[in-house]
Amino acid sequence: MRAAIAQAEKVKGNTYPNPPVGAVILDADGRIAGVGSTQPVGGAHAEIVALRRAAGLAAGGTAVVTLEPCNHHGRTPPCVDALLAAGVSAVVYAVADPNPEAAGGAASLLEAGLEVTGGVLADEVAGGPLREWLHRLRTGRPHVTWKFGASIDGRSAAADGSSKWITSPTARADVHRRRAAAEAIIVGTGTVFADDPTLTARPTDGTEVGRQPLRVVVGQRDIAADSRVLNDDAPTMMIRTHDPAEVLRALGDRTDIILEGGPTLAGAFLRAGLVDRILGYIAPMLLGGPITVLDSVGVRGIGDALRWRFDQVDRIGPDLLVSLVPE
Amino acid sequence: MRAAIAQAEKVKGNTYPNPPVGAVILDADGRIAGVGSTQPVGGAHAEIVALRRAAGLAAGGTAVVTLEPCNHHGRTPPCVDALLAAGVSAVVYAVADPNPEAAGGAASLLEAGLEVTGGVLADEVAGGPLREWLHRLRTGRPHVTWKFGASIDGRSAAADGSSKWITSPTARADVHRRRAAAEAIIVGTGTVFADDPTLTARPTDGTEVGRQPLRVVVGQRDIAADSRVLNDDAPTMMIRTHDPAEVLRALGDRTDIILEGGPTLAGAFLRAGLVDRILGYIAPMLLGGPITVLDSVGVRGIGDALRWRFDQVDRIGPDLLVSLVPE
Repeated sequence: MRAAIAQAEKVKGNTYPNPPVGAVILDADGRIAGVGSTQPVGGAHAEIVALRRAAGLAAGGTAVVTLEPCNHHGRTPPCVDALLAAGVSAVVYAVADPNPEAAGGAASLLEAGLEVTGGVLADEVAGGPLREWLHRLRTGRPHVTWKFGASIDGRSAAADGSSKWITSPTARADVHRRRAAAEAIIVGTGTVFADDPTLTARPTDGTEVGRQPLRVVVGQRDIAADSRVLNDDAPTMMIRTHDPAEVLRALGDRTDIILEGGPTLAGAFLRAGLVDRILGYIAPMLLGGPITVLDSVGVRGIGDALRWRFDQVDRIGPDLLVSLVPE
Repeated sequence: MRAAIAQAEKVKGNTYPNPPVGAVILDADGRIAGVGSTQPVGGAHAEIVALRRAAGLAAGGTAVVTLEPCNHHGRTPPCVDALLAAGVSAVVYAVADPNPEAAGGAASLLEAGLEVTGGVLADEVAGGPLREWLHRLRTGRPHVTWKFGASIDGRSAAADGSSKWITSPTARADVHRRRAAAEAIIVGTGTVFADDPTLTARPTDGTEVGRQPLRVVVGQRDIAADSRVLNDDAPTMMIRTHDPAEVLRALGDRTDIILEGGPTLAGAFLRAGLVDRILGYIAPMLLGGPITVLDSVGVRGIGDALRWRFDQVDRIGPDLLVSLVPE
């Protein structure tokens, strides 16, 4: 299943509205005979790619998939049929398909006499490659990750506004890798004025960027025509509002959005309850001064604090990467 | 050696100016025959306590000690003599004794024909139970740990000043355990006005508090006579200055000091380069607003940032405990 998860991670961001799924076919002796991941819309599902690679070796073998195989004719025929045709004798999956249209795959496979095991590493898949897709299916809204970089005392820049660089090259490479998997990156006009960012995904770890995420600039002010965010490296959308709900409506057909806004815009999204995950890159540095990572989030007393939960905490180079999800 | 480290941790804070040392005696078959730790000044060293417990079983066995056994007559006779008299055939230690008076123990043991191994888990001991004692020996100054509790966005209280509680009971119990091992706790008058803390060590994990650390209030302002910090639970010292160097001179005979000051006092110590370790308890919470964990540390541009290094990062209940040391 870990190999299947790795396959899914590889295509994250390139499959929506389809889920990024990974599959591994084991032959009858338990050796890996083929791996695959979801192709861009209209292309094959992960199971099909893996079955093709396994060819004759799938017969009597096991299919390991991060999502319950689909049972319906969409743009492609049902994966259940392909698994049966290939003669696999067992199917192991992580997450059950919550999409009523596509569900029922496990039941059909069981009926056909296969050994079927669900729920294997389900939390890891549901919190990992499928997190944003599942969120969208459940809420009808895109999944929003607020990403920030800060010193250990919560500053996003020094007193004079300088912020290059608070976090290490390793941390910044991770940000670019995540941008490459996202569909849109949101900033406020304030960030454009302060930092003039390009906002493209430029991974240094060799990750290929198939398509750049949409750059979204939110706010009422005009930005300079020669702002880097308006260059030809990626498409850019201007949304003239301060209302986070309106921003998300304008991006309603997306699944995975990264909010890189400064203290004001991030505060507005957090206050509106429209942040689904927080990713903080925290550097072992003290800056002090007036530029904090967040201004007001509408909290007056400790009783109103916005409470989250540490989902994951990792060292990343000299820095710390903390992931938080709503409590 | 891990068992010896645990013995040392147990007595941390109760042995100064002697180092908190732990010792384990293994019998000739490698079984634990006795453990011991440094007794309060004038009492026995760790090796002697462990040898007494091991009694006859020490002969032909191994002594495992966190610090090189001493070779001099201080308030007690040399441990080297006791180890030879007990007939141990091997000695394993972590950190070499940097104190020229006490050093030479390993050489004497080698000369006497014992098998001697030094440097075992030396970093763990030097960064752990012996950290403050070694610092004092090296610099002549007490070791200062700045401890703070904050939300993930760097706030030490909500906008209205309320801060009970940002961190969890588990994190607060850890603070009390550390207070119990320290010799003095420093706050500024501002913290006394804002929070009226008792500043005593009140561990909830069963740790016994032999003596309470000295409470130190720093600043020019008078505090109310009924401030909790002036109650009879522990001794209290008022130091009427804002100069961190002057504060440390007044506490010059101490080894292990915790600075729990608010944003202004902590900033002054950090700016003066008089903080040797940072311990941050970080809660998965957003507060925003004006009350930051640190005001100014004299940093204007990113180039002047105070750079540290994450030494240890641990989950503690729902919170995060980060330890930083100078880069």
